[in-house]
Amino acid sequence: MRILFATSNHHKVMEANEVGKNFGVEFSQLMERYPEIRDEDVSRVAEAGAKFVFEKIQKPVVVEDTGLFIEALNGFPGSYSAFVFKKIGNQGILQLLKEKENRNARFISAVGYCDSDGVRIFQGLVEGSIAREAKGGAGFGYDPIFIPEGQSETFAQDPEMKNGISHRRRAFEKFCRWVIGRK
Amino acid sequence: MRILFATSNHHKVMEANEVGKNFGVEFSQLMERYPEIRDEDVSRVAEAGAKFVFEKIQKPVVVEDTGLFIEALNGFPGSYSAFVFKKIGNQGILQLLKEKENRNARFISAVGYCDSDGVRIFQGLVEGSIAREAKGGAGFGYDPIFIPEGQSETFAQDPEMKNGISHRRRAFEKFCRWVIGRK
Repeated sequence: MRILFATSNHHKVMEANEVGKNFGVEFSQLMERYPEIRDEDVSRVAEAGAKFVFEKIQKPVVVEDTGLFIEALNGFPGSYSAFVFKKIGNQGILQLLKEKENRNARFISAVGYCDSDGVRIFQGLVEGSIAREAKGGAGFGYDPIFIPEGQSETFAQDPEMKNGISHRRRAFEKFCRWVIGRK
Repeated sequence: MRILFATSNHHKVMEANEVGKNFGVEFSQLMERYPEIRDEDVSRVAEAGAKFVFEKIQKPVVVEDTGLFIEALNGFPGSYSAFVFKKIGNQGILQLLKEKENRNARFISAVGYCDSDGVRIFQGLVEGSIAREAKGGAGFGYDPIFIPEGQSETFAQDPEMKNGISHRRRAFEKFCRWVIGRK
C-alpha cells in the first residue's frame, strides 16, 4: 500500500519507511507545503496540516509534526521546535540549560492522516534527557542532544537505537497497524 | 471614530489609545481569538489575523503583531516572540546572549486593518539593543531588556519614552493618519 507523506524533510520519510516496510506500507514524499497553525499541541498542528493537504489534493495523505518538550523550560521549544532549531540550534538549547540540573525532556510525534472519512491522529512519545553537549553525526535536528531513557548515547550517536524506539517510529507503527487493519 | 482592536492584551489597547487620542480615533478591545499563522514576517501574521476576524464578525477591525528580532540570534524570537516569552522569558533571552558582544535588536510592529475593501498593513520599527540585565517595572514582555537607540534606559524603565518612540506607536500613527484621511 502506498501512502503520500507531505513533508519537505526526507529524513522523516526514510524513518517512516523503516517502519512501513514491516507492514507492507510505502510512504512517498509529497513536497506540498501547508500552513502550520500556532498551537502548543503537535496533534492539532498535524490535524490541521493533514486536513489542509487533503482538501487541496483530494488524495489520502499523512503529515507529521514533532516537538521536543523540555521540562525545565516549561515545555520549550515544544511544537515550535523546527523554528527554534533553525534560529538558535542545539547550542542555544544547551546554553539555556547550562545551570539547570533538571535535564528531563520528551519527544512527541503526531502523525495526522486525512481521507474522505476525515482525519485521525496517531501519537508516539519517548522520554529522555538533554545531554551536557551535542554528540553524534547521524539523524537531524535535536538528535545530537537527546538521550532516551535507559540509554547512554544520543539519538545521533546510535541511529539504529533511535529507529528502534523513537517517538516517530511509535507514531508510524500505530498508524500502519490501523491503516492495514481497516482494509 | 471607534475602531475594534482584536487582542487579549490590554496593554496594547492602552498604547494604541495613547496614539489614537491625537487623531480622534478610539480603539475598543475585542476579545476575539484568531489563528496566528507560522510566518517569520509579522506583517503576514497581522494580515491573516485581520482577515480572519473580519470574515467572522463582518465589522472593520485591527489586529497587531509584534516581534523582537535579535541580530546575534538570527532574528530569534521574531514573530514567535509571545510564545518564546511565555516559555523562557527575559532570563532565557539574556542567557542566550550571555557571551555575545553583538546586542543589536529591533522591535517591529505590524497593524493589520481589514474591512470590506480588503486588508492593509502599517508597520513601525524601532532599533536598539538588548540590556545586560532586566531593568524597570513598566510595560510588558521584553520591555525590561530593550534599550532603544540613543537612550540609556529600557522601555520598562521609562514608559513615557517608550510611548513617544515605540514600534507600536509608529505603526498606529501610520494607521490613524490613513484612516482619518480616507473619510
